[in-house]
Amino acid sequence: MSNFKSLGVKGVLCDITGVLKESNTTDDGQAIQGSIEGIERLVAAGIKIKFVTNESQITRRELHQKLIRLGFSMPEDSIMPPAFAARSLIEKENLRPHLLVHDDVLQDFEGLNTEDPNCVVLGDAVEKFTYNNLNTVFRLVKEKQCRLISLGKGKYYREDGQLTLDVGPFTAAVEFASDQTALVCGKPDKAFFQAGLDCLGLTADEAVMVGDDVVSDVGGAQNAGIRGVLVRTGKYTTQDESHPTVKPHLIVDNFKALVDLILAT
Amino acid sequence: MSNFKSLGVKGVLCDITGVLKESNTTDDGQAIQGSIEGIERLVAAGIKIKFVTNESQITRRELHQKLIRLGFSMPEDSIMPPAFAARSLIEKENLRPHLLVHDDVLQDFEGLNTEDPNCVVLGDAVEKFTYNNLNTVFRLVKEKQCRLISLGKGKYYREDGQLTLDVGPFTAAVEFASDQTALVCGKPDKAFFQAGLDCLGLTADEAVMVGDDVVSDVGGAQNAGIRGVLVRTGKYTTQDESHPTVKPHLIVDNFKALVDLILAT
Repeated sequence: MSNFKSLGVKGVLCDITGVLKESNTTDDGQAIQGSIEGIERLVAAGIKIKFVTNESQITRRELHQKLIRLGFSMPEDSIMPPAFAARSLIEKENLRPHLLVHDDVLQDFEGLNTEDPNCVVLGDAVEKFTYNNLNTVFRLVKEKQCRLISLGKGKYYREDGQLTLDVGPFTAAVEFASDQTALVCGKPDKAFFQAGLDCLGLTADEAVMVGDDVVSDVGGAQNAGIRGVLVRTGKYTTQDESHPTVKPHLIVDNFKALVDLILAT
Repeated sequence: MSNFKSLGVKGVLCDITGVLKESNTTDDGQAIQGSIEGIERLVAAGIKIKFVTNESQITRRELHQKLIRLGFSMPEDSIMPPAFAARSLIEKENLRPHLLVHDDVLQDFEGLNTEDPNCVVLGDAVEKFTYNNLNTVFRLVKEKQCRLISLGKGKYYREDGQLTLDVGPFTAAVEFASDQTALVCGKPDKAFFQAGLDCLGLTADEAVMVGDDVVSDVGGAQNAGIRGVLVRTGKYTTQDESHPTVKPHLIVDNFKALVDLILAT
């Protein structure tokens, strides 16, 4: 823990689901104890925060409103979801996307030309991950050489108490079938973490990343040169503490415990 | 081509779909020109043949009957599908499978104890590859440490003129999500090709493998020490001729052309 005090933490890149709140499908979920106050305490202490999320089931606005309903008070533009990174890439390169994303996130792609697609955007499409939809995506990538863009590459998350497949496995399926490598917008892509740092105006060694996904959050951040902190909430399982390739810089019981450490004098 | 004559070919491991017949969903498909006679000519010349297929949409009996209707005349037990290899493994190790396979192949697993599963068998489940079914499989593998068994790991095949996802990408998805490696029964698993050779009573250098899948058929056979022949039928595309990792020993227009070469004096 000492390296947190001695090096000083000026900013926090913070995952949302599993760190600030637990997720379920029937309502907004619930804030994890101490996380609402934790953010307020960091802000009061002048620590900058950017919420780097792979959420691709709902728009940024909806996610923000959900957090506000739970009692959080961050501004909407402090949240950085993969759809924003993907849209900016699509606009910059004049791409025409075929979208296999959750209906609720379509709005983030409104107004883009989707005719005669030359790229595919895969998000956490949930029940829209059907055999037919995956075949359509596969054919576009394999036969029409469409670029494959993935909104994050998380393996799974916990929802309604159950581990649930994220977009990553479906991206892996299309990659395996087509021999193409997806461009990942979102965690664990290095550029995504770097964009978060840029928003905060900090260098990698001035920030920490905190998440409940040992590979995507912690390993991804470390790969970008940022200290990675694992919380024992969300989809965390004890096996994560002896992960074969990722060694978190720190493991804490929850977000509050990390805030306590950062603010300890 | 000279190595085929000089080394002598005593046996052929032969893929079915895309080599002997083209596939479609509405009827039995159609025999590829020259393939019915090709097999008869090999048999007449004393060349042994085993049909190594990754077919996991129908039972071996149904596949055999389909071939007979198309005009072929091989015995049923000359066909070796992955379900037979998987069932024999399951029985040997007293496993209790959860089956995500095509309804028409369930019969090959009849009578096995499927309660409280400790392994998962993934076949080419087609429309049964739903988000919910894949989540069930994922949870069994990730949380209950069920062994993951895959009936082949082909990437795709051609059906009704379209490239269509095979079981492989779905296996890759579960592997990616769960950090487990599937045990592959079927091509391109080395043991599967070896079992084919054992059935023929031949060594690797006495046989050739012929298929339309450059990775699974040709690369898989080569990995087992068997010469791999690619046909320009089935799902073959011209890109396969410059595949980054697999160089076929021989590329022929169709199965008939290979038979001509093998029988040339």
